[in-house]
Amino acid sequence: MRHLLGIEGWRRADIEALLDRAEAHLPGGSASSSVLQGRVVANVFFEDSTRTRTSFEMAAKTLGAEVLNWTAQGSSVSKGETLLDTVRNIEATGPVALIIRHRSSGAPHLVARHVRCAVINAGDGTHEHPSQALLDAFTLRRHWGRLDGRTVLIVGDILHSRVARSNILCLKALGARVVVCGPPTLIPVGIEQLGAEVALHLEPVLPQADAVMCLRLQTERQSESFFPSTREFSRLYGLNAARAGQMKAGALVMHPGPINRGIELAPAVADGARSVILEQVANGVAVRRAILEVCV
Amino acid sequence: MRHLLGIEGWRRADIEALLDRAEAHLPGGSASSSVLQGRVVANVFFEDSTRTRTSFEMAAKTLGAEVLNWTAQGSSVSKGETLLDTVRNIEATGPVALIIRHRSSGAPHLVARHVRCAVINAGDGTHEHPSQALLDAFTLRRHWGRLDGRTVLIVGDILHSRVARSNILCLKALGARVVVCGPPTLIPVGIEQLGAEVALHLEPVLPQADAVMCLRLQTERQSESFFPSTREFSRLYGLNAARAGQMKAGALVMHPGPINRGIELAPAVADGARSVILEQVANGVAVRRAILEVCV
Amino acid sequence: MRHLLGIEGWRRADIEALLDRAEAHLPGGSASSSVLQGRVVANVFFEDSTRTRTSFEMAAKTLGAEVLNWTAQGSSVSKGETLLDTVRNIEATGPVALIIRHRSSGAPHLVARHVRCAVINAGDGTHEHPSQALLDAFTLRRHWGRLDGRTVLIVGDILHSRVARSNILCLKALGARVVVCGPPTLIPVGIEQLGAEVALHLEPVLPQADAVMCLRLQTERQSESFFPSTREFSRLYGLNAARAGQMKAGALVMHPGPINRGIELAPAVADGARSVILEQVANGVAVRRAILEVCV
Repeated sequence: MRHLLGIEGWRRADIEALLDRAEAHLPGGSASSSVLQGRVVANVFFEDSTRTRTSFEMAAKTLGAEVLNWTAQGSSVSKGETLLDTVRNIEATGPVALIIRHRSSGAPHLVARHVRCAVINAGDGTHEHPSQALLDAFTLRRHWGRLDGRTVLIVGDILHSRVARSNILCLKALGARVVVCGPPTLIPVGIEQLGAEVALHLEPVLPQADAVMCLRLQTERQSESFFPSTREFSRLYGLNAARAGQMKAGALVMHPGPINRGIELAPAVADGARSVILEQVANGVAVRRAILEVCV
Repeated sequence: MRHLLGIEGWRRADIEALLDRAEAHLPGGSASSSVLQGRVVANVFFEDSTRTRTSFEMAAKTLGAEVLNWTAQGSSVSKGETLLDTVRNIEATGPVALIIRHRSSGAPHLVARHVRCAVINAGDGTHEHPSQALLDAFTLRRHWGRLDGRTVLIVGDILHSRVARSNILCLKALGARVVVCGPPTLIPVGIEQLGAEVALHLEPVLPQADAVMCLRLQTERQSESFFPSTREFSRLYGLNAARAGQMKAGALVMHPGPINRGIELAPAVADGARSVILEQVANGVAVRRAILEVCV
Repeated sequence: MRHLLGIEGWRRADIEALLDRAEAHLPGGSASSSVLQGRVVANVFFEDSTRTRTSFEMAAKTLGAEVLNWTAQGSSVSKGETLLDTVRNIEATGPVALIIRHRSSGAPHLVARHVRCAVINAGDGTHEHPSQALLDAFTLRRHWGRLDGRTVLIVGDILHSRVARSNILCLKALGARVVVCGPPTLIPVGIEQLGAEVALHLEPVLPQADAVMCLRLQTERQSESFFPSTREFSRLYGLNAARAGQMKAGALVMHPGPINRGIELAPAVADGARSVILEQVANGVAVRRAILEVCV
């Protein structure tokens, strides 16, 4: 029994072992579909999420587990219950793992110090989203074999993105070069300390990338009165067909979803030959099956 | 693997084969309860529905499937994701069937052109609700043996009713005579082209009916300033005890639910000897088990 | 097939048989995990509840049942369907038990007169919450062996508490002395007829208690202009560290959750050595497994 709280602190060998194991969990793979038979896994989502929750639910159910879906909406949280009381209560009913999403960075780490079952971070604030980074790395590895020496360009709102943060840590650990690109207001100070290079303009770095990972622009966060507006962002950083044409032959386009079509990614690119976006989703189930198998 | 998008285009033999198969899925029937063992079926409901969603969920679970319940509420749809991105994402996680309800007529047809798994229409706009029509026909067939020559009277808001539309197509295909009855403002132009006869007054046609199917008056659509108000509708078209008394001996009363007691249907009639309303609900599970078995 | 509508009317031998059976349902116990294999249990919650719903869901799933979660939110209830129509519809799809929570006292009793499957009351208005009382008694019995001669002090809003009411009935049936304590405005007239003694001040009775059960103060019901305000309640009736220090050696602290930390219960007491609050939660699953086994 162990936790998956973040990519931070994972060694390359740990990540590779997990990704190796995920191969066995692909459709038709050798992993057993009854690893979690008779066990219960709890989805504990304090923030809305369909995509990640559904992926973990599919992973758990196809391993034979039962899934309890707990959401903050209509729960005792609205009656003022504390995070720790809530999770200790859920734990007391007997699940083998808590899959936690919370708006506060560090919430799963706090929980992990107070429960005995496995804690899996499904996204905490602007901190980490480790299962997303692992499925992204898994997708790239299936295309490239190894990530060493490859350049991955992450474009968009790096400042608020737990996906970017976990991906930088994971990709660097696996030997890739990572460049983050976005407007200066959306690049966090000190991101270079994670090993990422910073580019403020897309054009110079785009031809270097073996993969471009577009982040979702959280348009609800943007305002016309601040830089960049959604329109400016799209004009300067959106991956449109012209820009995709400047990418290397064979370079890949990724997106963690949900896509704002026409903002950070043009429909023709999202649905084009470079896109591995739906592979990411499918691989997500295999990677999360491996995570559950390893943690529980 | 095939789809169930609507009754339109189904031949009589197809419908009868499905209804024959549904017999085996009744409680105690010969159908296996492990047809979908190890498979996942996704309920993808862009519109609220408890009744239909629960019935499909019961059908799937009693065939051994796991069920993913996806609802628009709190999902990536609220973040601006397109219908096709949403369903392609859900499909990528591996379900064998998508059961879709959507406010837009034709949405399941669009989806079916873009996914490889089975698509089952659980109600699209004012267009079709095929599983409802099949369970209604199944219920009548269990009472009558054959529908040929029988008269089914559908009463209420025909204009906005996908239940009416699918039922007209299904009942006509099975040889029944269908009469629709309601205020002229709620009868769609050209409904005769589906084979239905139109009656604007209930009294003359009521004694002819072997079954009366009352539709739910969507009272949230009615307004006191337009004809008919809820009160007028009830006075002119509500199936009260007096009117039920004019029906043939043995004629049946149906309703797809949820009932507005006292508006389109009097409580004494809803709970009376003619009513097969709860049979419809119970048969719905058997019919949906057959649909899943045939489509997946 | 029987119902669990309330503790009222249960004889001591019935309660003890159920609690005996619950022992077999503890983790590692002798009860089979496939008692409800192939059966479906429906959670029918007209009021929000995470805690009780999740506990029943965990109980049912670990007995091999499938669980249908029905909530009033987004359901046909919002379309004006009656309670009886709703539950008869759910019953018609085939579950072996309906687990019902409703804001109206007596709703599960009404339902039980109109359905053939088992009805389990998961809380009705201010009336009863029998599974909570049974799990509380089970928790005490595991500590004490027998409840005869023990004093249980129930503190707080007795007037609106179905937990208090069911607990008084259950604890008295098992031979305990029950004292209820709270502000006069929150003590129902005639509570002595259930066998409880009434105390308006905490200090005199606290040292007599073998267990203190703090009830949740429904702060949304309180108002600063009425007695007691939340602050007054906490000062007069909150179980703080000083008061917990006046309790007997080995006396227990209980709470049905969710806790208002710092109002009815100080954090140090909730998490202290006397607290059996998380045991209550864990025992709840075993007791509810026994309830399902006995009723279905």
